[in-house]
Amino acid sequence: MGKTVIGKVLPLSFSRHPHMKQFLLLGTGLLALAVGTVQAQVHEFMLDNGLKLIVKEDHRAPVMVSQIWYKVGSSYEYNGITGGSHVLEHMMFKGTGNYPAGEFSRIISANGGRENAFTSRDYTAYFQSMEKSRLEVSFKLESDRMQGLLLSEEEFKKEVQVVMEERRLRTEDKPQSLTYERFNATAFMTSPYRNPVIGWMDDLENLKVSDLKDWYQRWYAPNNATVVVAGDVDPKHVLELAKKYFGPLKSAKVTPPKPQVESEVPGRREIVVKAPAKLPYLIMGYRVPVLPMAENKWEPYALEVLAGVLDGGRSSRFSSRLVRGSGIATSAGAGYGAHSRLASQFLLDGVPGQGEDIESLKQALLQQIRELQEKPVTKSELDRVKAQVVAGDVYQRDSVFYQAMQIGTMETIGLGWQILDEYVDQISAVTADQVQEVAKKYLVDDRLTIARLDPQPMDQVKLRKPSKPRAGVTGGRH
Amino acid sequence: MGKTVIGKVLPLSFSRHPHMKQFLLLGTGLLALAVGTVQAQVHEFMLDNGLKLIVKEDHRAPVMVSQIWYKVGSSYEYNGITGGSHVLEHMMFKGTGNYPAGEFSRIISANGGRENAFTSRDYTAYFQSMEKSRLEVSFKLESDRMQGLLLSEEEFKKEVQVVMEERRLRTEDKPQSLTYERFNATAFMTSPYRNPVIGWMDDLENLKVSDLKDWYQRWYAPNNATVVVAGDVDPKHVLELAKKYFGPLKSAKVTPPKPQVESEVPGRREIVVKAPAKLPYLIMGYRVPVLPMAENKWEPYALEVLAGVLDGGRSSRFSSRLVRGSGIATSAGAGYGAHSRLASQFLLDGVPGQGEDIESLKQALLQQIRELQEKPVTKSELDRVKAQVVAGDVYQRDSVFYQAMQIGTMETIGLGWQILDEYVDQISAVTADQVQEVAKKYLVDDRLTIARLDPQPMDQVKLRKPSKPRAGVTGGRH
Repeated sequence: MGKTVIGKVLPLSFSRHPHMKQFLLLGTGLLALAVGTVQAQVHEFMLDNGLKLIVKEDHRAPVMVSQIWYKVGSSYEYNGITGGSHVLEHMMFKGTGNYPAGEFSRIISANGGRENAFTSRDYTAYFQSMEKSRLEVSFKLESDRMQGLLLSEEEFKKEVQVVMEERRLRTEDKPQSLTYERFNATAFMTSPYRNPVIGWMDDLENLKVSDLKDWYQRWYAPNNATVVVAGDVDPKHVLELAKKYFGPLKSAKVTPPKPQVESEVPGRREIVVKAPAKLPYLIMGYRVPVLPMAENKWEPYALEVLAGVLDGGRSSRFSSRLVRGSGIATSAGAGYGAHSRLASQFLLDGVPGQGEDIESLKQALLQQIRELQEKPVTKSELDRVKAQVVAGDVYQRDSVFYQAMQIGTMETIGLGWQILDEYVDQISAVTADQVQEVAKKYLVDDRLTIARLDPQPMDQVKLRKPSKPRAGVTGGRH
Repeated sequence: MGKTVIGKVLPLSFSRHPHMKQFLLLGTGLLALAVGTVQAQVHEFMLDNGLKLIVKEDHRAPVMVSQIWYKVGSSYEYNGITGGSHVLEHMMFKGTGNYPAGEFSRIISANGGRENAFTSRDYTAYFQSMEKSRLEVSFKLESDRMQGLLLSEEEFKKEVQVVMEERRLRTEDKPQSLTYERFNATAFMTSPYRNPVIGWMDDLENLKVSDLKDWYQRWYAPNNATVVVAGDVDPKHVLELAKKYFGPLKSAKVTPPKPQVESEVPGRREIVVKAPAKLPYLIMGYRVPVLPMAENKWEPYALEVLAGVLDGGRSSRFSSRLVRGSGIATSAGAGYGAHSRLASQFLLDGVPGQGEDIESLKQALLQQIRELQEKPVTKSELDRVKAQVVAGDVYQRDSVFYQAMQIGTMETIGLGWQILDEYVDQISAVTADQVQEVAKKYLVDDRLTIARLDPQPMDQVKLRKPSKPRAGVTGGRH
């Protein structure tokens, strides 16, 4: 009935909300790394209907987190229905035949639990953190809404307005976010990563509840889901409960999305985004591989180390040279993650320092890249980055939530949770030559996209009707 | 059963193959306009199953053209299945239950007919030109393949290879086409016009016959088709035949595509395309409205006149000033069409003259735009453009094919054939002030996308395996 795999898992951190993870905040880099050698047991089961269950024991505290991960997110969408996965995530709280709208959250809360849901490019996931004995509550509710969602027209009409308001707040009214959104739509020419997770406004305005019904039927099935439970639980008991609640659900025919490999023709791309803003802002991104399709497996790890050299705390190059040093930047960041489903971007961003402009900031960032290409990084820099990776583990080990999150992410992007085991070793094995090699190979003009925010006077902002309050959205959820 | 509308129709010319129409050849502009006052009778019928029939009588020669227009093309597609409409067009010749692969073309040929098929952004259309008594042959075959297509796996596998080869010949190996393709994917950020009609290579490689089956079922229905017959025919007899052959077909639920209005944030975009080539090449495009969604109906007509001022024969500004005059350009063109389903681009393109570079060509083109904004065009220029429009009619009147093509296009993009009646009047009414006004309003930096081809040595071309001959494709068809 189920197979069990025992292994250890090393946590990677996911430092931000997935929406924000997409958006390079200033000063990212290797802060997003983490490590350690948590020799915890991981148990993997597969139900007959294709649902995967992964249990990670952690008995330090009488708590558990239960997560369900669906292999669907904005990179599964297509033009015309962008944002659909995220609106569907909202609708998952709006009632089933057994539990009317709002009941899900009320029950979790009544059981002393906390809940959350995320939509990203690569997944849609629902989480509950509760006292360890309450797992059954989570499974009962999650299995119920996997196939019993009502998707009423009335609830949909309210909720899509909530999402459009979310978009106005988080994108239209945030010039850096707007710049980043348009950067993606330029840097990714054919990859579905070009579309924002929240969707284009025109698509949201034209979304129908029937689109969501199609989407729900297409992706919400046990054989397209991974349940991850971490904490003070007994794997056998978890499996029993999973069989009881998820076992009766029928598997569905799930057609994986088309590959849509990014079309690669060399040549720089540059865009200007004009929006009301006080400060200019610059994003530069290089087209780079990630783990699932890397030519050489060490390359993505070397790129992570490279990001850590540029941007990982006060002694990083960007901080010491550009921000505190020359003052050419008020802030400057570098970011890259090796773990995503499709090829990605190595990102640099920044705000010019007082009296500096975008052009001088751009030249300074390019100069930092050239130095990496011309000269190997120093041993002390490598050591610092690797030490940060180990240090990151201290945080992570404390959190059953992040442990589960890492497992769920790796499973959902197709790498398998076992890859987490390799992380510290792979990062530790990166050499200065390798960092130089990836800098030379990937951080080149032919792979570069540049987006600059050209600030417009704030009084040019059109007056908008005051928007409705965001009724029905829990603060933490979205 | 059917309603009849009597009207007159004024032909617009469509001077190029739809694939090529997308690609701005050097020196386009108002050559693509045409006119006249053909007081021909147009008869419009609607069958009970939703099929629209439009008959245009033209008794000058004992011939007729029969065309069937489906409201589907690349702008109906979405990421992952780009190119599907065009591959399906190929498959329409690959056999039904009644007529095996190749039989369609054999029968048309045996009846002395010529046939053709086109896929564009906005439509997929199939044409037969025959002696007037052979209309029944056309209806019999077209009605048969509207719902009886086999779509065999075996034929599909061969045909998709043919299409990939077509893509290599027409895009990958043509640096100007490659530049134009990537220009579109940058200039259109959210509009489906961003995808090439032939599809992205990765999508073609992953296309399945099941995708085409879905596509065929979704769009090939009588209520999503317009049949246009022009020539020496009797409308009543045409209607009878249409009822006989198309009448029994069942209508289907056709969901129109999502609007996907282009997301508009001001700011220039520039890309470089590096490809093996001998000459550099420049494309500049401004985001502009077209007739279906123009704020002011006269604006698209004024933009057409503007294109004619810049590029319409030897006395046009580009020809007299940039090519023959300063020699800054070896060739320079301007192109715009008011008739498309979705908002479009006003295009300029050119190849620098000997000793000139892309930058100086770009400045020269921008200078021409500035002059249009600063000073009204002269009366003699306006007169020339309008005269060209009238002259264009001489060509068009001779061709029942183009008459039908114009009707089919206008119907399929949602404007209705009646709009053709207005064309000469609308163009004639355009004033110098209006030309200046659209230049000021639309041909501005905030709406501009620039793509430049940066030629790479030809010996950098990777050696490719010799490709299979394009068996089974008739020369004229695609």
